[in-house]
Formats: sequence, C-alpha cells, structure tokens
Amino acid sequence: MLDSLPADLSDAMQWRYAVKKMDPSKPVADDDIAAILDAIQMAPTSSGVQPFKVFDVRNADLREKIRAASFDQGQVTDSTTLLVFAAWDNYTETRIDDVVDHHADERPGTREALEGYYSNLKGMYLPREAETNFEHAARQAYIALGFGMLTAAHMRVDTTPMEGFDPAAVDEILGLKDQNLRSTCFLAIGTRDTDGDWLAPMKKVRKDAGDLFERLD
Amino acid sequence: MLDSLPADLSDAMQWRYAVKKMDPSKPVADDDIAAILDAIQMAPTSSGVQPFKVFDVRNADLREKIRAASFDQGQVTDSTTLLVFAAWDNYTETRIDDVVDHHADERPGTREALEGYYSNLKGMYLPREAETNFEHAARQAYIALGFGMLTAAHMRVDTTPMEGFDPAAVDEILGLKDQNLRSTCFLAIGTRDTDGDWLAPMKKVRKDAGDLFERLD
Repeated sequence: MLDSLPADLSDAMQWRYAVKKMDPSKPVADDDIAAILDAIQMAPTSSGVQPFKVFDVRNADLREKIRAASFDQGQVTDSTTLLVFAAWDNYTETRIDDVVDHHADERPGTREALEGYYSNLKGMYLPREAETNFEHAARQAYIALGFGMLTAAHMRVDTTPMEGFDPAAVDEILGLKDQNLRSTCFLAIGTRDTDGDWLAPMKKVRKDAGDLFERLD
Repeated sequence: MLDSLPADLSDAMQWRYAVKKMDPSKPVADDDIAAILDAIQMAPTSSGVQPFKVFDVRNADLREKIRAASFDQGQVTDSTTLLVFAAWDNYTETRIDDVVDHHADERPGTREALEGYYSNLKGMYLPREAETNFEHAARQAYIALGFGMLTAAHMRVDTTPMEGFDPAAVDEILGLKDQNLRSTCFLAIGTRDTDGDWLAPMKKVRKDAGDLFERLD
C-alpha cells in the first residue's frame, strides 16, 4: 500500500482514522473548519447540481439531542462541530432551474446550452421515484464527505464519519423535512483523545490490492 | 471560496475539472495510476467493510463495448484506464465474515470484540432489502471516488467521474452479476485535450457558501 502516493497524501491517509474518542478541551481552529467546508464546496457532483446542504452544528443543545439519536456516540458532542450532510429528498423542476440560473449567471452566453442539457436531465430525473433521486443525491454528498476528510487529514485535523444515527429523528431535530432534505451522514470535526481511544493504537486494515482491484488487460 | 485551504489542495481543486475530451496520445504513467488506486484502497468505508471492487479496465475491446453502453462518451476509450466501481449487490454473512477474518488476522487478539461488533452489524444489514444494502455499499464507493479524484488532481492527473451509462449493460459486459456486483460509477483517468474540450476554458461554478452551508450556533 501507498508506495506510489505522494508522501504528503500518503502520510495524511496513514495518520487519519475514524476517531472514536475526541477531546473537547482541544478545539479545532475556525480556519481549519473553514478549509474543510471549502473542500466540501469544491467537491464535484453529478452535473454540478450539489444536491445537498451541510449543517455546521455548533449549538450544544442541538448536539445533545442529536447524540441521543445517535446511539449516544460521544463524538457528536465532544467534537468542535458536527457537520450534518442533508441530501435533497428529491429532484424537482425548481431545484434544477436554480442550478441553470446560477450557471448561466456565472458563465455568460451559455444559457441556451445549459437549458438543453438540464432539460434532458429533468427528463431523466423527474419521472423517477423520490427514493431513487434521494439515493443519487446522497451519493454525491459522499464525494464531498471524502473531499472533506482527506483535506482535514492533510491539515492533521481529526474527523469521524458517522452513519450510526436515526435519520428520521435527526431530520426532526433539525427541521429538515420542511426543507425537503434528509440527513445522510455526519462528519464530526475535533481532536483525537489518543489515550482514551481504543482504536488509536490499532493497525490500519485495508483489503489487499489483489482483492479490491482487478485489472482487465 | 478557498481562502482557508492549504495552497496545494486549493490549487489542485481549482485545476481539477470533469474532463470532457481526453487526448489518448498522452497516456498517464503507471505509477500515477497506482497512486490513485492506493488512495481508493485507503479511503474509509462504513465499519471498514470496503463493500466494492474496482475494475481497472485497460482492454480496448471491453472499453469499446462499455463506450457503446455509455452514450458514446469518448473518455471511456480516450482515457488511459477506465476504473469501474462495482458495489456489492447485497451484504451477506460470508462477506461480513471475511471482513472479520481479515481484521482478526491483522489485529491479533481482537477476534472476540470483532465478532461482537460485526454480529450486531449483521443483525442490522442482513434483514434489509438487497436494494437498501446495495445503495449503502454504493455510497461507500463514492467516498473512494472522492479520494481518487482529489489525489489525481494533487498529482495533476486528469479524471472524469461518470455516471452516464447503462448499468445493466456494463454489468453484462464485465460479468458482474456472477460476482454479485453492480456497476455504480466510472473514473476515467487520462489527459485533458485542452483545445478540444468545450469545458476546459469555463469558469468553475459552485454554490455560494451561504446556500450550501448553514451554521447552527
């Protein structure tokens, strides 16, 4: 593993792990959190739609409530912030039109081409089940989750990606249903409590390349 | 955007775009492709399961067939390799037991704890619909897709993430059904043909931070 990677990325990936115990007395700097949000903002998504919203939850009361809906996992409250990735619950005409308008504003002279492209996209997305579209949107959020985690590790900022929560309860706590959003995953950003974390000393385990990859020549 | 990011990551993210036209006369070095595979291998996944396989498709005939099932998009054949991310079509007892065995081998003394943890996981995953489990597996592949793209950009290697293909046809071409896998996304790795790519000169467009993020204090 990692023989070919540039050293800074290899080091970041070796350093990173899904922190199980965070030390709330060592908060992450606001600038570092801002950089992770920059990476999430820059992450590519299918057709440039960015079909999600990310809640940067600092509020202690909200985090206590979310923790109770997350099997009482400590990172929810011991982190400096909890990012909640909330994917669109469906694609709609209005949401796609907003993408067209934004792109047309940013790239003058492209409106006609954009309308052609996104009209085709609507033809594909809008007749589909809401669940299919939500799953498609959720996948895009995971690209951004990846960008955010790798960027954090590169800066030696700890994170924990989390799926162990009750989505319906979190949606209720954050009022997501009214925004036509559904909670999909968390990224807790904080600082590892090395002494208190059983996972910290463990060897990183990954599938062998021979099991994960197959080259077809 | 990008005020807070470390310069090397910011530059990589600005440089990266979803290449629409690749120049097959400029192949990507094998070492660079290996580094991208390293990043995919190192990407975190839910409970460390890595529930996907990545096909590194170099074969010209296979790529012609895949291109025909991908709206004739040129990157499929003009890239140096086409990575096909194929997610598990379901979680099974055997697949999860293999994860336990591998982790127990790599982390001596942990088998009992692993069996407890993954036994709970089976209790959650195995009764679910295959489609639910496939979607969960597919999301994990998208984290790895993100790691792969960002690593490539950091090395100034071009990529195109692609979803515009007929999954059933690609599954047939690669014989995925017999392996209980389903094609989920592609990552074409190649070199941008700047003069021939309409997207190359376009301004990068991303949602404003105020639309994408909401801070809850």
